Amino acid sequence: MKVAKFGGTSLANAEQIRKVCSIITADPERRLVVVSAPGKRFKDDIKVTDLLIKCAEKYIECGKADEEMEAVVARYAEIAKEMNIGDEIVDIIKKDLCERLSGDISNKAKFMDLLKAAGEDNSAKLVAQYLKSIGVEARYINPKDAGLFLSDEFGNARVLPQSYENLKALKDMDGILIFPGFFGYSLQGDVVTFPRGGSDITGSILAAAIGADMYENFTDVDSVFVANPNIVRNPKPISVVTYREMRELSYSGFSVLHEETLEPVYRRGIPVCIKNTNNPSAPGTMIVPERKSKNGPVVGISCDNGFCTIFVSKYMMNREIGFGRRLLQILEDEKLSYEHVPSGIDSISVILKEKQLNAEIEERILKRIKNELEVDDVSIERGLSLVMLVGESMMRTVGIASRATGAFAKAGVNIEVINQGSSEVSMMFGVRAEDADKSVRALYEEFFGGE
Amino acid sequence: MKVAKFGGTSLANAEQIRKVCSIITADPERRLVVVSAPGKRFKDDIKVTDLLIKCAEKYIECGKADEEMEAVVARYAEIAKEMNIGDEIVDIIKKDLCERLSGDISNKAKFMDLLKAAGEDNSAKLVAQYLKSIGVEARYINPKDAGLFLSDEFGNARVLPQSYENLKALKDMDGILIFPGFFGYSLQGDVVTFPRGGSDITGSILAAAIGADMYENFTDVDSVFVANPNIVRNPKPISVVTYREMRELSYSGFSVLHEETLEPVYRRGIPVCIKNTNNPSAPGTMIVPERKSKNGPVVGISCDNGFCTIFVSKYMMNREIGFGRRLLQILEDEKLSYEHVPSGIDSISVILKEKQLNAEIEERILKRIKNELEVDDVSIERGLSLVMLVGESMMRTVGIASRATGAFAKAGVNIEVINQGSSEVSMMFGVRAEDADKSVRALYEEFFGGE
Repeated sequence: MKVAKFGGTSLANAEQIRKVCSIITADPERRLVVVSAPGKRFKDDIKVTDLLIKCAEKYIECGKADEEMEAVVARYAEIAKEMNIGDEIVDIIKKDLCERLSGDISNKAKFMDLLKAAGEDNSAKLVAQYLKSIGVEARYINPKDAGLFLSDEFGNARVLPQSYENLKALKDMDGILIFPGFFGYSLQGDVVTFPRGGSDITGSILAAAIGADMYENFTDVDSVFVANPNIVRNPKPISVVTYREMRELSYSGFSVLHEETLEPVYRRGIPVCIKNTNNPSAPGTMIVPERKSKNGPVVGISCDNGFCTIFVSKYMMNREIGFGRRLLQILEDEKLSYEHVPSGIDSISVILKEKQLNAEIEERILKRIKNELEVDDVSIERGLSLVMLVGESMMRTVGIASRATGAFAKAGVNIEVINQGSSEVSMMFGVRAEDADKSVRALYEEFFGGE
Repeated sequence: MKVAKFGGTSLANAEQIRKVCSIITADPERRLVVVSAPGKRFKDDIKVTDLLIKCAEKYIECGKADEEMEAVVARYAEIAKEMNIGDEIVDIIKKDLCERLSGDISNKAKFMDLLKAAGEDNSAKLVAQYLKSIGVEARYINPKDAGLFLSDEFGNARVLPQSYENLKALKDMDGILIFPGFFGYSLQGDVVTFPRGGSDITGSILAAAIGADMYENFTDVDSVFVANPNIVRNPKPISVVTYREMRELSYSGFSVLHEETLEPVYRRGIPVCIKNTNNPSAPGTMIVPERKSKNGPVVGISCDNGFCTIFVSKYMMNREIGFGRRLLQILEDEKLSYEHVPSGIDSISVILKEKQLNAEIEERILKRIKNELEVDDVSIERGLSLVMLVGESMMRTVGIASRATGAFAKAGVNIEVINQGSSEVSMMFGVRAEDADKSVRALYEEFFGGE
């Protein structure tokens, strides 16, 4: 039994949904299907989820949002009409939206989640309806009925352990099950959503729960590429990649899979296949626990922008036991998460996402570091990009660091930070933002033999 | 006015002490002199400080240590005899040792400090006596009388701020002042010593206190070398090095200067000169606040052995705010200090000196990390060496990392850890202990053009 998940562009219109349904019915193992909300039909289109966010915001502001709700309904109605599945489903969707809008707006995050989840939920109802209309035994599954319970962190939920036991029952149900992605329910019965892109997580949880043979993730590209196609022209595809490699890649800039997606399948050792809805016969990218094929030590190059460095120096810092811990405590008090902490004997840097800092937080932490840690100097430098070289066998291959740093030198890029040695999967280079693309291209040239 | 400090080999016998005295009298600016305890006269000789440690240990164990005490007295007596300064000074030294041995042994660390300090203290008395005997106006200065007060951390003391004010008065005293290195007094009046090699610190504190024009540190080498002469044959000398560069070098394996030596002169911007007692006309190595001469970006290569890595991995570690801080807290609870904390997205490593760990501490921290942080995996790997490339302009020079990693690759050395980016002065490479010497030689070859 396979779990198949389809992303937003695969559900953007009737034509795409027909492709999805023919993919589903082409393999009898594809019995548990996770769907996203309808995505963009064309470049400047608006995703249904974004329409829903607008709708929710307008409602909170004005107490009504008729126009915005109508825009959402119109998207579904257009699809339903083109698929000849009648008006009944549109009425169901409209009624559902009205009910959601009449929810409690006193907790804004909770209300937003309730509205946002409508995209996937109604998408699932629509797909089930279409399959039934063409004579396929299919049904919509409500996540609450199925027992997908999440922590009550609105917009940022985590699955609760009992969900896996609950969801196991899906395995024994007949027909094709259409499950909405992106959300579940808190133990209090509220709709809660995963971080955005979370339909991938739903699919991963279901695959783990039923012990699927494979988790197929259908998107709009033939495969994952070794580097960002917006930076490198026609990059090579990745045919096989390990969980750990994929996690590093998706964490640090690869947007194909949301970074937390893999945890449930990782824990169960279930292989994942990234495939293209528009070209289902292409082999795609397989994500597996262990990789035997030897495609060279580097599997991918990623890049993530928008980091800053808090640089702290104090003569004799290394003599002070607890200095680093107290510095991290100050960041923790401000709920800041950091990426790396390179250190010298008299200095320590903390690299973190700069969007976490606003002027107020920045002023507060700089003041605390100065006063409480009695440092000689503390400053923040913005505009750092992190370029990652990813590959499991890299660390046991002499000369990778040399080839990588040689590529930077050849491109005339000064490396501000190097962090290698903890992760066995990646090597990190911090460069100025303006050098980021150049760096990715230089590494691609070095490790994948030219564009 | 200059402060001149002479190390143990410069005071090992009468011949050496004569050299010291002729150096002192050759420059009228050399008015404040710091001396160590007599060091080794030949390869397998025992330093007076080590004789004193033996003596103290024997006394604690047996309640007497006549033979050990006699061995110490014999060293001074031999010197006094060869210098024709009479028996009186030997009686003074013998009486001093007897008095120290009758001290309180209930606090072992305190007793050890009292005994250890006798080496420098009597060395100073002897040198002063000799200078007087040849008609030079000189006198022994007692650190308590001069007001050198230290924290009461026996064997690991730090100077107390009021000492600087007290010591200023030395500037106005007549004649040549012979000051014993290595120890001072707690505010309770107990003798306390600096970490070993601490005579350098005494000299540095005195130079800062009197605002000396220069702090001359006399030892037994013509200069500091760019790499360890035991590893690289005939390494090039360093003519000028900055405080920050020297501190990195001495912290990470250069044994010429004790790593904390420079702080007091650093704070006052006083230049330091490392010179050779046996070849005082050689220019030596100057340590200065700023370096203008351009000798290439790398000034030295150091290497320190005996590190271990605590490797911790946990899936989704990066999602847990406070993880790193809690890990460092566990180490802090055990009073462990660490050097570097490289991190990946699911893993973090802590690099620390392995001698800090015994089986008991190791078991306890591994257990705590496992239980309290609920990690997937935690392990300790020993036998790591840290090779440092040091130089102030390195970080602004494109291609240094490339040349360095290229040298490792050429030597067939796998780099386990790279830490670059916080210190603006150094670049750190972690390698297996068995690759350490090979790495230093490869870097020397690359940056200093062959042995």
